[in-house]
Amino acid sequence: MVSVGVIGAGLMGTTHARTLATAVPGAELTAISDTVSEQAERLAHEVAVDRVYGDAPELIHDPGVDAVIIASTAPTHEEFALACLQAGKPVLCEKPLAATAAAARQVLDAEAALGRRLVQVGFMRRFDPGYRELKAALDGGAIGAPLIAYSTHRAPTVPDAFDSEMVITDTVVHDVDTIRWMLGQEMTGVTVLAGRPTSQAPAGVHDPQMVVFECSGGVLVHVEAFVRAQYGYDIRCEVVGEAGTLTLSPPATALVHRDGHATVDLPQRFQERFADAYIAELTAWIASIADGTPVGASAWDGHAATVICEAAVESQKTHRPVAIDLSDKPSLYAAQPEELLVAGH
Amino acid sequence: MVSVGVIGAGLMGTTHARTLATAVPGAELTAISDTVSEQAERLAHEVAVDRVYGDAPELIHDPGVDAVIIASTAPTHEEFALACLQAGKPVLCEKPLAATAAAARQVLDAEAALGRRLVQVGFMRRFDPGYRELKAALDGGAIGAPLIAYSTHRAPTVPDAFDSEMVITDTVVHDVDTIRWMLGQEMTGVTVLAGRPTSQAPAGVHDPQMVVFECSGGVLVHVEAFVRAQYGYDIRCEVVGEAGTLTLSPPATALVHRDGHATVDLPQRFQERFADAYIAELTAWIASIADGTPVGASAWDGHAATVICEAAVESQKTHRPVAIDLSDKPSLYAAQPEELLVAGH
Amino acid sequence: MVSVGVIGAGLMGTTHARTLATAVPGAELTAISDTVSEQAERLAHEVAVDRVYGDAPELIHDPGVDAVIIASTAPTHEEFALACLQAGKPVLCEKPLAATAAAARQVLDAEAALGRRLVQVGFMRRFDPGYRELKAALDGGAIGAPLIAYSTHRAPTVPDAFDSEMVITDTVVHDVDTIRWMLGQEMTGVTVLAGRPTSQAPAGVHDPQMVVFECSGGVLVHVEAFVRAQYGYDIRCEVVGEAGTLTLSPPATALVHRDGHATVDLPQRFQERFADAYIAELTAWIASIADGTPVGASAWDGHAATVICEAAVESQKTHRPVAIDLSDKPSLYAAQPEELLVAGH
Amino acid sequence: MVSVGVIGAGLMGTTHARTLATAVPGAELTAISDTVSEQAERLAHEVAVDRVYGDAPELIHDPGVDAVIIASTAPTHEEFALACLQAGKPVLCEKPLAATAAAARQVLDAEAALGRRLVQVGFMRRFDPGYRELKAALDGGAIGAPLIAYSTHRAPTVPDAFDSEMVITDTVVHDVDTIRWMLGQEMTGVTVLAGRPTSQAPAGVHDPQMVVFECSGGVLVHVEAFVRAQYGYDIRCEVVGEAGTLTLSPPATALVHRDGHATVDLPQRFQERFADAYIAELTAWIASIADGTPVGASAWDGHAATVICEAAVESQKTHRPVAIDLSDKPSLYAAQPEELLVAGH
Repeated sequence: MVSVGVIGAGLMGTTHARTLATAVPGAELTAISDTVSEQAERLAHEVAVDRVYGDAPELIHDPGVDAVIIASTAPTHEEFALACLQAGKPVLCEKPLAATAAAARQVLDAEAALGRRLVQVGFMRRFDPGYRELKAALDGGAIGAPLIAYSTHRAPTVPDAFDSEMVITDTVVHDVDTIRWMLGQEMTGVTVLAGRPTSQAPAGVHDPQMVVFECSGGVLVHVEAFVRAQYGYDIRCEVVGEAGTLTLSPPATALVHRDGHATVDLPQRFQERFADAYIAELTAWIASIADGTPVGASAWDGHAATVICEAAVESQKTHRPVAIDLSDKPSLYAAQPEELLVAGH
Repeated sequence: MVSVGVIGAGLMGTTHARTLATAVPGAELTAISDTVSEQAERLAHEVAVDRVYGDAPELIHDPGVDAVIIASTAPTHEEFALACLQAGKPVLCEKPLAATAAAARQVLDAEAALGRRLVQVGFMRRFDPGYRELKAALDGGAIGAPLIAYSTHRAPTVPDAFDSEMVITDTVVHDVDTIRWMLGQEMTGVTVLAGRPTSQAPAGVHDPQMVVFECSGGVLVHVEAFVRAQYGYDIRCEVVGEAGTLTLSPPATALVHRDGHATVDLPQRFQERFADAYIAELTAWIASIADGTPVGASAWDGHAATVICEAAVESQKTHRPVAIDLSDKPSLYAAQPEELLVAGH
Repeated sequence: MVSVGVIGAGLMGTTHARTLATAVPGAELTAISDTVSEQAERLAHEVAVDRVYGDAPELIHDPGVDAVIIASTAPTHEEFALACLQAGKPVLCEKPLAATAAAARQVLDAEAALGRRLVQVGFMRRFDPGYRELKAALDGGAIGAPLIAYSTHRAPTVPDAFDSEMVITDTVVHDVDTIRWMLGQEMTGVTVLAGRPTSQAPAGVHDPQMVVFECSGGVLVHVEAFVRAQYGYDIRCEVVGEAGTLTLSPPATALVHRDGHATVDLPQRFQERFADAYIAELTAWIASIADGTPVGASAWDGHAATVICEAAVESQKTHRPVAIDLSDKPSLYAAQPEELLVAGH
Repeated sequence: MVSVGVIGAGLMGTTHARTLATAVPGAELTAISDTVSEQAERLAHEVAVDRVYGDAPELIHDPGVDAVIIASTAPTHEEFALACLQAGKPVLCEKPLAATAAAARQVLDAEAALGRRLVQVGFMRRFDPGYRELKAALDGGAIGAPLIAYSTHRAPTVPDAFDSEMVITDTVVHDVDTIRWMLGQEMTGVTVLAGRPTSQAPAGVHDPQMVVFECSGGVLVHVEAFVRAQYGYDIRCEVVGEAGTLTLSPPATALVHRDGHATVDLPQRFQERFADAYIAELTAWIASIADGTPVGASAWDGHAATVICEAAVESQKTHRPVAIDLSDKPSLYAAQPEELLVAGH
């Protein structure tokens, strides 16, 4: 049994706590922290946990906590991740690894200095059954060498505070990680384009945005991020290769014939769309702790995503292509082991 | 933690043991029995279990076993299920509940005499996300009152020993339970039809078969069972209602465009098609033991399926419609509680 | 140029007249008749025809009419078809060929006596691109020998006068012809089943109905006819063979993602669903007149459909299987020539 | 009856001649010309035409020719189109309207000086049932104001001589016209991107290419052109609006379950994919001649496509965004009439 403490009782912390409490074998949820004590108490009560902290470092140093999930706000990630490394405890850090590329580099360097991987970054799509099947088919040569990749990321709505920059750092960041992982290529350049924004967006906010990445192997990547698309939470992916294409199938839902239409429901929220992915992510993380072999996105991947998003934001502001430099990779990440098979898939 | 013993180290026992060992929270696999000791040892070794029995009753009475999965051959189910009831231990019995309707009645009566439900029958489709969605939509009134239900059950191949009767008792039995559960109606009559058999079938074996059931609420049910269909394991369901229809979507797999075709893979085996259902079935079963509220198919459902299949076999042999009498239902099963929500779905 | 006269200015006559006037090369619509002269005048005005008759035989004998479409009520078909045969003029007769099997036999015998085929029966599905593709794939061996065929025939609504018998004679008649044509097998027996009718049906009317046919080659055919299905006009077909299955794809319509759903429109009327089939049917008919080689359903096919439907109505009334005898086939129809390729498809 | 002469007996001329001869009402194919007389004779023989010319202007001035289809090589279009205008004869000119924007301007100015529209440019997609449905839904407000449009254009293979520039002028030109027509917006800028080319492309040829257009209404258009995609001829379109998206459905073909897959055939050639569109295009053109109301793409549209493609080629060579100026529109094209309904759809 791995005893897990969760930092942050907000949306992601709650999602992870519930998943741990009901669907992950080999894990015991033992502690929760949040700076807002009512929120921590509420979640602790729901999932029957009795160790509740206001202060995250106390949770990290609790000897009854074997491993930590960081699901607090982005600016706190660097400090908490460094504390976990110092304490030698495995940590699943929600994206981003840190609020800036420089901060992410601090975490990366600390782990590299430690000489062993303790950090997994919460890019759950790597555990989604559909994406895994796509990667397996691509790696198996189903379509020959990849040439173009499409990643479409639409959400029905976001708060007004979700600005043009957050479309990159909170939304496109997932597409960046998914494509890097799927293709096994690094990104080398980025151009952000935006046309007329939806009337749903506050004045001055670019939504949707089209982001074009170039990769080290010559693949062009086209990402559409549209977070006020109204109609649903819609995640699509197609990889075009020399001999064919691979398309992510949306999760199957009942087909209804009614009122003159044949229709399927679309998910409305990421928790719904990626419910299986979150279970698989935590199951694989817990198994990897027991087993000693890291899985999922590494600190390097978390750092890379942060660097790439900063370049995209620069392109967004300058309206010009921006080059990306990811040459300084610590040797600890040189040969990432193949991921464990995800239980049940 | 619920300690589970598995009786039978064959196909289903192995499937359940692997699922318990990797994907079900709150359960610990502690014992395995099989009359073939090499088979028991092999599986025990694979899943790291050290209590291995040749004799199932010993496993049932082991104080370190809280709950039992019966996955041995059908003729043994009655004896082992009765022993579990006597020992007061929760049991998940693979279908059929017993080899004959009379034997199933013995189990049913024993549980009814006990006055509390300990038996769950392994009809895993009730836990399949697709079927659950269909039932929820139907219960929610999406298509109005149901009028016709289709259940198509195709498998690529079976051993030659799989005869006309087994097409009913081993294959159609699943469709029977799924439809009873989905519609909440009892079956009252059955007619089996068979045209020209596939040349893949041994002489004298009817495959495919069309089975038409009538239900207490007037719904006509059309089941096609075709177990040497060669092309894949293909499970379909459509319910036609007064205002529309509901169709089960096959699990989503990657769409491949290649060599002049757009194509998706079909599953080839039931373990693959229903992998999520098996995890959800065991997860719900373990949670129901902790919680004290039974879930899934009851002994009554198991008994009913056996009675219905015997009637279908009679129709198969007489080429005439056969009436089904399921009036003698013990009060213990009068009001089946709504099932627990399945974790993660 | 083939000069065509249309008998009947109702629903089907109007459909054919409009198609002839706008979409069929090599044809000129020159005359229209209807016993209701206002109706004839209205249609003649719409399609710019100046020869208008109240009496169909006058139209048939008009020397300016080379070929005739019979789209008047079923009881008149026998008389008008016989008149066309007598006049030696090619005729496209809407289904049914005649109101009873005995009457259809009169037409059949008259044509057989004449010794050459002048009659085409208006089973337009034989010209539908989707059905043609299905037949070509089946004939090409794509799924091996056929074992089961499904034909689903749903319409949103019909007038209250549409009774249980008309569900067979006006609806299932299309499925009968399509399956006979596609399989190239004769039907030998029929059983009609009906469960609870939809509350949309008048008292005493069976709707939906399930009709099971046996074919000379051992194929079982399952037809569902549901003419008050409310949700749309939905035509489906699947043929299950020894090595796989062939499914008719519904016509492609735009996929709309909106309001939480991915949805496609369904047709609401047969004219919409089979618009291309009607154009292809008339185009092939006109070409066959110029060319001298008959296409489409023959008088034999029209006769067979009538015989089969009478057997089905008997089964409907007796609740028993009814045998079908179609052994008395005139030699004129012994070897039907392969149909001409339909222009443009 | 409109008598039509076809200039050019190559691929497109043959396609049009066959369509005219079999599927277009109201038209008579009466003359064919080609500089290679064997080619002209072969086609004339196939479609039973006896007036054969080596010299196109002779065909144009033949009093027995009412209307002309120009399907000769691009460099000849300007001369022949001008000759048709001079002769006052309606002309359907295959794309491009002329080999250069300057030449297209000559034709445009000549028609504008004439003061009435005689030229239709052969952008057949405007007559494709799928695209028409998309436009109707968009115009009907199904998804609100458009924001992004995707147009994907893949072909299995092309001759080695098909170079980077032709990917724009022969392939993307169709996407340009389709998007302009569907959105009713003019294009104002273009950027061409290319990553690693497929190994199927000759050295130095960019294939695939990604082309991003900006439109006057702020819509961003993403075109992928990939003409050596090997797997099939695959045309896709999605328009993303403020309230949802519209996706072109591929033509329906039979769904085959076989050998472990569910699969549909893809078309391999444009003639197959757009067979219905070519019939509808010619049918509408002939009807428009009889009726006097022009339909389809005008000389202005043909000119605009040429200007836009020249800008795209400049971007391809300079690797920079290029602005497009289409401000100089003759008043003749100011208010293009709504197109006639296409017969049969």
